[in-house]
Formats: sequence, structure tokens, C-alpha cells
Amino acid sequence: MGNDSTDRIVEGLRRWITTAPPGAQVPSNRELTAEYGASPVTVQKAMRVLAGLGLIESRPGVGTFVRAVRTARPADYAWQTAALGAPPSRLLGLPSAQRSTAPDAIALHAGYPDRELLPERLVRSAIARAARTDAAITRSPVAGMPDLQAWFAAELAGAAPAGVTPPSARDVLILSGSQSGLSSLFRALVGPGQPLLIESPTYWGAILAAAQADVTLVPVASGPNGPDLEDVARAFEQTGARAFYVQPTFANPTGAQWSTQLGRDVLELARRHGAFLIEDDWAHDLAIDADPHPIAAADDDGHVIYIRSLTKSVSPALRVAAVTARGPARDRILADRAAESMYVSGLLQAAALDVVTQSAWRTHLRSLRELLRARRDLLVESLREHAPDAHLELTPQGGLNLWLRLPDGIDAAGIVRACEGRGVIIADGTEWFPAEASAPHIRLNYSGRDPDRYPEAARIIGEEIERASTDHPLRGTAVRAD
Amino acid sequence: MGNDSTDRIVEGLRRWITTAPPGAQVPSNRELTAEYGASPVTVQKAMRVLAGLGLIESRPGVGTFVRAVRTARPADYAWQTAALGAPPSRLLGLPSAQRSTAPDAIALHAGYPDRELLPERLVRSAIARAARTDAAITRSPVAGMPDLQAWFAAELAGAAPAGVTPPSARDVLILSGSQSGLSSLFRALVGPGQPLLIESPTYWGAILAAAQADVTLVPVASGPNGPDLEDVARAFEQTGARAFYVQPTFANPTGAQWSTQLGRDVLELARRHGAFLIEDDWAHDLAIDADPHPIAAADDDGHVIYIRSLTKSVSPALRVAAVTARGPARDRILADRAAESMYVSGLLQAAALDVVTQSAWRTHLRSLRELLRARRDLLVESLREHAPDAHLELTPQGGLNLWLRLPDGIDAAGIVRACEGRGVIIADGTEWFPAEASAPHIRLNYSGRDPDRYPEAARIIGEEIERASTDHPLRGTAVRAD
Repeated sequence: MGNDSTDRIVEGLRRWITTAPPGAQVPSNRELTAEYGASPVTVQKAMRVLAGLGLIESRPGVGTFVRAVRTARPADYAWQTAALGAPPSRLLGLPSAQRSTAPDAIALHAGYPDRELLPERLVRSAIARAARTDAAITRSPVAGMPDLQAWFAAELAGAAPAGVTPPSARDVLILSGSQSGLSSLFRALVGPGQPLLIESPTYWGAILAAAQADVTLVPVASGPNGPDLEDVARAFEQTGARAFYVQPTFANPTGAQWSTQLGRDVLELARRHGAFLIEDDWAHDLAIDADPHPIAAADDDGHVIYIRSLTKSVSPALRVAAVTARGPARDRILADRAAESMYVSGLLQAAALDVVTQSAWRTHLRSLRELLRARRDLLVESLREHAPDAHLELTPQGGLNLWLRLPDGIDAAGIVRACEGRGVIIADGTEWFPAEASAPHIRLNYSGRDPDRYPEAARIIGEEIERASTDHPLRGTAVRAD
Repeated sequence: MGNDSTDRIVEGLRRWITTAPPGAQVPSNRELTAEYGASPVTVQKAMRVLAGLGLIESRPGVGTFVRAVRTARPADYAWQTAALGAPPSRLLGLPSAQRSTAPDAIALHAGYPDRELLPERLVRSAIARAARTDAAITRSPVAGMPDLQAWFAAELAGAAPAGVTPPSARDVLILSGSQSGLSSLFRALVGPGQPLLIESPTYWGAILAAAQADVTLVPVASGPNGPDLEDVARAFEQTGARAFYVQPTFANPTGAQWSTQLGRDVLELARRHGAFLIEDDWAHDLAIDADPHPIAAADDDGHVIYIRSLTKSVSPALRVAAVTARGPARDRILADRAAESMYVSGLLQAAALDVVTQSAWRTHLRSLRELLRARRDLLVESLREHAPDAHLELTPQGGLNLWLRLPDGIDAAGIVRACEGRGVIIADGTEWFPAEASAPHIRLNYSGRDPDRYPEAARIIGEEIERASTDHPLRGTAVRAD
């Protein structure tokens, strides 16, 4: 340096370089000579300085370019911290049911059935047929394909008692999976900051969707027979809530099934409080010992908003679900869906409808029932033998999960980690509680691959519970294990 | 209903049912098959639709009957009024681009290309192939299929100048259509009540998604060359906004294409204000006279959040899009997507990837370019001849739309209604303005069916503008026409 003109050119070009994209061509020496009124020697000197600083590079015969500095340093995203601000609660990380695992692990955590439980042949041929129809190449109406809407309506209508006006096809809105429905329902029917009654424990996806919609959760304890009616009444009264999210049939995770009377009573409470009952009939096709009787079938005043999904019974790749809603609620939900995703792929709708209207679908459901029964019973039996300390309050009459209470003082997360270290993937029950867990629980899903390894898995789970109980003499008190 | 014969039977029986007494027996399927000359499958389908509509009910072993009418009273949903409260603004009704229309209308309103513009054969065979893979029967990872993520990343990397670190596959999140991306981005990156800069006019779907996410829109006027840099700088400074939603390439509706310099300058502004640029490259595959140069390609500090969709270029039924985002922003968006919809159907992802990795895809894009050019030019020419008062400020170099300014004082909604009455469906430009429209506009989409009817459509549009101008001597003043 040491030369004012050189410095001037170096400073000028440095400023220019900070805004120029890497790789940009630097003005020629001739241009710079003119621009800065400097001699060619001075300009060359400035260029040498800049090259020495690693800011530019010259390609002989081509020109001089801003150096690709950016690759040298790791990207700096720190500026995003201020732009993003603090995250909304509960929206960080993925729940365990969504995790992918090593192929040789025993997966008891996931919520999606193994292919042995799916109507694979039906699904593949339905997709191939749909590929040849207009559905492969056109847009679906926002509310869904009329035939598929009609199918969902007819399913519910089939369960309607005499004297109740069943829903029409127009009352059905097709969704790409029930999760999308939950977000929309909570946004459309409850709204930010407003109270939503919710069973505890309940489906983590509903807790997540509620967090995203920024509604205020009001947990209502729910056991093997569903919630206590008094609790529900009190929650409605104290909070003025206008909606209650429920899983009256083979609830996830507990497996609870409400009695017909409880369903009727809760519907009556909802009526009295001018409230919606959001009934998530997620396991409608996953019955084992009992048949589902949707509360929605008994309502024609628009109190029950009914969600049913085909994702778990048809194929996780045919993400198709439906929400049935009547009155202005239907329009409010449709507007939210349109803003959120416009419409659902007609290909998925056509293929799903094809599957469920084949006579082989009924056959499939019957064999699925037996497969699920065998898997459930094997897992229950294995746990009884190898993990006696994992307490099963209820043998579920349908659904895909066992909900097990661990001895007090045991850290469920610790058990999950220890089992994972030994190749058994299970889910920490904490994720199913909208607030603090009432006790340590784990959830085991019996729809994954390799049911013949259930005894092995149960043995490992049993050993880890045993070890945790022995390691921690505080077991039995309220103190956490680690 | 997707099938003419089914429709015909449904309509016929509906008429019959309106006059039949409740409880009357419906003709047997055999009789209907004969009467309508339709197949048993078609008749059964029609019966399902009618059952779904609650109009008939079947008693096994007995027959099918007109359903004992809908109880005496009409359903009373009035209680929902209090439960739902006032709706969030802008979320009522469907925008005109989503409307379905009579099959003989000239449809210049929709945003989804006619099948002649789609790689139909490629799409059908890709779906058929995907039906045979695991993608038909398994769950996709939440972020998307790794191969498809890699494809989107490579597309952007191909446009990156030397020295810029291109995005990796991990930076790409797969979405079911770009609309879902917009909602998520506005929720995750902006948040309720926070300011979001947005071009005016701009894509109505973005305005809708912003309303749903409850962000506060800050409109920035944007003309044929994009926004004025001073305006953008002022908006950032005055509002402290941390995000700007832009369509720098063949913007919808104006067709505007930003200069490279404007892209660079706006990116620099975003950097200076620690803000995100949400770049919606919706028409990347719909170029005519110019090639897209995404701003995102020049950024590796995570300032540009880049959305690209395949819905309009591959098939409306393969709803697949991607958002590329780096740094913590990526995680924030992923968490929102997981809460909103868990994952995108792997079937759609596999089929879309299959299409865009065939060599025939490149051939298709080349022929698409020529088809779009011919359609655009024909519509421009027709309007010039028959509707000289509809002012086209810019002949778009890509995209699917013409944006036309009507003479001051003309009511765009009135023109839209009048044209619809004459079988020409066009869109009122008002829907593309985040606030009041700066002037009456209409948007004409040249990707619908029957381009040979453009002269006829232009004549009708021209006549209606003429009539509106003559009817209202106040034309030219600021007074609305009706």
C-alpha cells in the first residue's frame, strides 16, 4: 500500500466486492483507470493487494473475478435467530412415532402398519387403474371428488339410527390425511387463544396441531372407559369452551372405547353448551373385538365434526381422509382448507375410492381383524411373561397400540433410550399428554414389521424396567429416576 | 361425478324421487340397467351416490327405497353462529381461479393447464411404475423422498454462480403443492400480527395464506419490471418486516420479470435488514421468451427461501412442490409441516421424480414453450383486435396469464358477470390486490381448453367493455360503474 491512490481503489473495490456475488467479474483495469483517474500501475498494484487478501482472482485471458470466498467459511445463519424469534411451544423436533430407524431394529414406536396389514395388491391395481383415468391429469374440486364424498357420507349414514337425517355427500370434505384436518378444525372452529377441551392422554398429532393453531388446551383426564362425565361438564362450564376433541373408539394411545351411553351423554353436554364435538374415528377400520359406533351417526344438528382416515387401513401412500361437518362450520372449514392446500390430488382420491369399493376390501378388513388380534395377543402375552412390571390397564378392542404404565419413579425416557440401545424402539408416553404426564408410560405399537420378535422385545423391555427399578431405590416415590 | 352415465342415472332418479312418496321402492338395479342402457357397475355407482346423498336406503334382501324424508324439520344450525364467531378476514368463499364451470364455457379464469399442455403419457406411465414400487405402500419421510429432495437441490445448484455454495438435498423440504408451503412459511417465518412485505398485485393464494397465518400484509406496488427499490427499502425501514414475498419470474398476475440487478439489490436489502426473501418461482417451467434466473441461486446465507412447484408443469394430480431453506429456518418450517400434514404421499413424489428425470421431460418443456407462445400470441392478438380498450401493459415472457387494465370507472366485477352470462369466464383482478385495487383489471389465463376460441372470447370481452363504457358516461372519472 503506502500509496493514497492505491488505497482509494482498494477501498472502493472492497466495498463493491461485499455486495457483488462471488464470481462476478471485476471491472477491467482500463475501466478502473478511467473511473479512479489513476495510472495503470496504480490500478495493477491495487489488484495485487486485493488478490493478496484473497478477495479476487484473475483468470488469464478471461478477466478478474470476485473470489469464491464463501465456500471457505462455514455458512453463518446466526442472523436468522433474530428474524425467527422464539418458536411457538411444542413445535420443535419430531415425535418418536415419526422417526425412521435401522432396518434390523424391532420397531414398536411407529404408527403406520406394516405391508402385511395392508391390501397391497388392491392398492397397486387401484393406482394403476387410476393412472389411466382423468384423475391422473386433472384438478380435483376443492371439497373433493363427489364419488368419494358420497362414499364417506354413505359409510356414516349406514350407522345412523332411524329418525336421524344422515349427512349428504356435500357435508364431506376430502383431506390429504387426518392431520391436515386437525389443524384446519382447530383453526376454523376454535381459533387462537380460545379453549379446546382435549382428552389426556390423547393423540400427539392433535396436541401438535393444537399448538400450531395456537389454541389453549384444556386437558380432561381420560381412562380405559373414556373421560368422566362430571369432569367434562365442569370443563365446559369453567372454560366456556366451544369444542371438545375426542377419540371415543379405540383411542390412541389408551385403546379406550366409550360406551354408547357416554357418547350420548357427552353429545348432550356439547348440545347444552353450544359446542362442537370433534370426533376422530382414526381406527374405524382397525377393529378387533368390537365394532365402532361413531357418535356422529346420532347427530344431525351439526354438533359432531367427524374425521375418518384411510391412511392406516388402505396405504400410507394414499393419504386420504375426510371430515364430515354440517352447517356453516362446513363452509368455515372448507375456506381454511382452500387457503391451506387448495385441493387433494385426484389421483389419490380415485385410487382410494377404487380400493374401498372393491368387494375384496371387505375380505381384507376381515383378515386384517384376525392379523391384528394375533399380533395384539402375542404382544400382550409376551409382556405378561417378560415384563410383568409394565402394567396394561386395558386390552384394547381395536386400534394398533398397547398403553403401559411403568412403576412410579421410573423415567420413561430412560427406558426408551436403554431399549433403543438394544435395538428395540418404543415410544415415551409423555408425548401423548397435553400437560405433564400423570405417571410414566410407554406406548407399544403392534402393527410394525416382525411380530415374531415380540417375545424378544418384551424380554428386553422387561429387563430394562427391572434394571431401572433396581438402580433407583427411590422407586415408588414421586422422584424422577434421573 | 366423473362419469356421464352415472350422472345421467343420478339425475334421472333424483327427479323421480322428488315426486315419489317416501318409502317408495326404487326400480331394481336390473331394471335400471335396462332403462338407462348402462352397465351394472355404473348403476351401482349411481345408487351409491344417491345413498350418499341420503335420498335412498337399501334394506338387504328386500330392495332399495326412497328414504323416509329427512325428518319433518329442517336442520337448525343457528347455534353454530355463536360457536364460530366472526370469521377471520379474507377467508370466505372461493377465489374465481378455483371455480368449476360449465363444460361449454370458454374458461380463461383457471390457473391449471389444459391436458394438451401436460406430459400426459409420461405422467400416466410414471404413476403406473410408481404403483409397483415401495412408494405405493410405505410412508415417506417427513422432509420428503431423498432422491426427490436431491433433484430439487440440483436444479437450483445448476443455476448457482461460481463461488456460491449450492443447497444440499437436506435443505429441500417436499410439500403437497406450493400453497401448503406458503401457509407454513408465513406461519413459521413471520407469525401472527407480524409484518410481511408483499408485491401488489400478487398471487391471490399468497394473500389467502397470509390471511390464514394472520400476518399483517404490507403491500409494495409492483409493475411490469417488479417493485421500485426505494419503495422496498422504505417498507423494510418503516415496518421492521423480516420477510418479503416475491415472484421475480413471470409474476402472477402481471407477468413481470425482475432484472438480474433488481434481484441482486433486493437480496442486498434483505441482507441489510436481516430479513427473508420468500421467492415463489411458480412459473419456472413455464418460460416462453426468457429463462428464469432464481435469486435463490445467488444466496448461500439462508436469506432466500425458495419455492418451486411441479403441479402446473407435470400434473395437477401430482401435487408436489418443494421449499429450499437453509439454517434454523429450515427446521422451523419442517416442524410446521409436520404439525400440519406429517408427510407427503410417497406415491406422488415417486411419480413426479420419474417424470422429471426422463429425457422426454426436456422434450416436453421445449414443446410446452412453443404451445404457450402460440396461445399467448393468439390471445394478445385477439384482444388487440376485438378489445382495444383492455390495456395490456406487458406481454409476459413466461407464465400463463395476461393482466389487463380496464378503462378507469369501469367495474371489473360487472364485466366478469356480463362475460360469464355470455359463456366466457374471466377473473376479476381485484382478487390479486392485497388492499384496494389501484385500477380495474381482469386476468386472462391462456392455458385452458379451446385456445381456438380466443378470438370469440376477445370479441365478447371487447363488447362488454364497450357496453359498460357507453352505459356509464362517468367513465374516466373515479366513480364506480355500478
